[in-house]
Amino acid sequence: MFVLREVAIVGVGCSKFGVRKDVNLARLSFEAVKKAFEDSGITGKDVEFLAVGSAGAGGLYEEALPAVVIAEYCGMTGAGLTRCEAACASGSAAFFTAYMAVANGLTDLAVAIGIEKMTELDTSVVMELLGRAGYYLWEFHGFGPTFPAYYALYASAHMEKFGTTEEDLALVAVKNHKYGALNPLAHFQNKISVDDVLASPVIAWPLKLYDCCPISDGAAAVVLASKEKMRELKVDTPVWVGGVGFSSGTANLSQREDYVGLKASVLASKRAYRMANITPENVDVACVHDCFTIAEIMAYEDLGFCGKGEGAKLIREGQTEIGGEIAVNVDGGLKAKGHPIGATGCAMIYELVKQLREDVEKRERQAPIKNYVALAHNVGGVGHYCYVTILKR
Amino acid sequence: MFVLREVAIVGVGCSKFGVRKDVNLARLSFEAVKKAFEDSGITGKDVEFLAVGSAGAGGLYEEALPAVVIAEYCGMTGAGLTRCEAACASGSAAFFTAYMAVANGLTDLAVAIGIEKMTELDTSVVMELLGRAGYYLWEFHGFGPTFPAYYALYASAHMEKFGTTEEDLALVAVKNHKYGALNPLAHFQNKISVDDVLASPVIAWPLKLYDCCPISDGAAAVVLASKEKMRELKVDTPVWVGGVGFSSGTANLSQREDYVGLKASVLASKRAYRMANITPENVDVACVHDCFTIAEIMAYEDLGFCGKGEGAKLIREGQTEIGGEIAVNVDGGLKAKGHPIGATGCAMIYELVKQLREDVEKRERQAPIKNYVALAHNVGGVGHYCYVTILKR
Repeated sequence: MFVLREVAIVGVGCSKFGVRKDVNLARLSFEAVKKAFEDSGITGKDVEFLAVGSAGAGGLYEEALPAVVIAEYCGMTGAGLTRCEAACASGSAAFFTAYMAVANGLTDLAVAIGIEKMTELDTSVVMELLGRAGYYLWEFHGFGPTFPAYYALYASAHMEKFGTTEEDLALVAVKNHKYGALNPLAHFQNKISVDDVLASPVIAWPLKLYDCCPISDGAAAVVLASKEKMRELKVDTPVWVGGVGFSSGTANLSQREDYVGLKASVLASKRAYRMANITPENVDVACVHDCFTIAEIMAYEDLGFCGKGEGAKLIREGQTEIGGEIAVNVDGGLKAKGHPIGATGCAMIYELVKQLREDVEKRERQAPIKNYVALAHNVGGVGHYCYVTILKR
Repeated sequence: MFVLREVAIVGVGCSKFGVRKDVNLARLSFEAVKKAFEDSGITGKDVEFLAVGSAGAGGLYEEALPAVVIAEYCGMTGAGLTRCEAACASGSAAFFTAYMAVANGLTDLAVAIGIEKMTELDTSVVMELLGRAGYYLWEFHGFGPTFPAYYALYASAHMEKFGTTEEDLALVAVKNHKYGALNPLAHFQNKISVDDVLASPVIAWPLKLYDCCPISDGAAAVVLASKEKMRELKVDTPVWVGGVGFSSGTANLSQREDYVGLKASVLASKRAYRMANITPENVDVACVHDCFTIAEIMAYEDLGFCGKGEGAKLIREGQTEIGGEIAVNVDGGLKAKGHPIGATGCAMIYELVKQLREDVEKRERQAPIKNYVALAHNVGGVGHYCYVTILKR
């Protein structure tokens, strides 16, 4: 396994996450794209390939086929276009596709945009759409679980096997809200306590309302370039794509080997570590897929930040806060920053590029950068899809 | 512009196109995948990356997020997964993505599947979804054109500027039905006459019913491999990906420079010719995007098979039939083979691989292969998206 050209991230942008009924799809995209273009010093005319990550087009919002609309609005008409969908990992699928277009020399400059508008529909409709992330005809249509129910199954199994508690789950929410409160782009900017989480309404036991990420609107954009193009653009602090990994799990949860971790995360991260030639210990800062609090604890284990079953210990000890062993979701994570599903993968890259540049606007949430290595972990469905990206500076 | 690893097509498969209410999404995919696996001598476990081209997921058929469902059913769980959408060019976007994964060394074996189930909904609903291929909020929602209306606009402009006639358009349908009648996988297997076309009901003048491709169900699959993997699999007659090109047009048709050709086709094909280091004269056989008869005539011109405005002459002289200058759509094309939108791009590759292997089941529709070069031209929307792929043996 080898990659034949180095690829640099030369610009990033991210919109405000939240309820964004004030803008349509194209304008929301442009909010992120404009910043990414300014950051890299390019214009839309320079872009030869654009990948748009969006999961719910035609279902969640008005444009069924969004890539061409976004391309026109952002001045990129003429570029090769594709929309990528991998459920909640759609943003990473788009990043991966744009990365490949540069890595193999088909273009020197490509853009990935992640976007989702989720608040245009009733929550009940959104929940039904999310529940279809697995095998609609069999498990969803047959048994009716919604998304929290799927993760509740994992949470209860993890509690049973490893002694993880409801308080441990709550600690993840508390940490991520703490950092969300320091992030002006975050959907939620309020601190919460363990008691707040435990007292919030049960959605699917053991998961309560505050164990779940919100339904959000948002967009993020990343500009990728070859080394030659990066030099031409006179980029001061390029961040390099060190490794990418991908894998998938069974559509039917009934076919899984166990319910205490996501095999797709294990396989995707192993692939990414191997390609980047690093170990989990080298990672300074990570964005992991915390759509529910249990997902962050499982991610610690599946990504090798600790041994299997030790995830709760990590959060209890504060090891994933700034100052601990590894800073995780210090942008607020999906839990507090918000989770516009197609946007999330690109928003993780945005955050990690800012972290590696040591350029986070509020210093209280700047992670200490020692090895200049960051990791993004983006899951689609319940480990149905997984992409892991390793960045280096 | 350069590509760093050669990529071989080592297996192809295609389902029967038509009204396929007899199978669900997963089974329809498997009909194509099984043939492609047998053709290449691999199993699902060998596949490291899968790209699924499908435009209407969640709108046209039941599974909102189809890639993981197809992967499980076809034994590819664990592979990296993405769904690609570029309107009616979704199959080519998937092929392009799988191609890139092999070309840059991320994997030695990748699969592209194109699939669409369109007959599960009323035709009126399908027409509305297709009309959204451009800018839904502005042109479609504002003015209400359906897909045939968009192409009728181009047809009438082409007739006005170049003297193309309704009979010329009809000749495209007659040719493609002639070859569809020789293709057991085609949706329509009946010959028609120019009079049949002219007498068919007007859909959007000058386009009549028989100027329009049908609404179909179908799937196609392509297995791509590195040279090393190809040798390991002992493939007798590999077909090589010689060049790929991509481009896009404005979402709003009101922003186009003219209405007699698709600029995205011109730009995408130039890119592909340059990469493959060939000229249009080298192409033995082509599949072009004939969603409406006018589209095939414009494709002749946009791809450089003739000069601008000379497309009608080419069809009148029979130059695009077998025995003419270049064999075009001798599988029946979208017009007679059918156009399950996400499947089409991969189905074109299927056909051209068979042609280049000189292995078409009915000899009457085997094109003469002199230069061992074939071209696939797949358009999304009305030149909103375009992918051109050049194959060599």
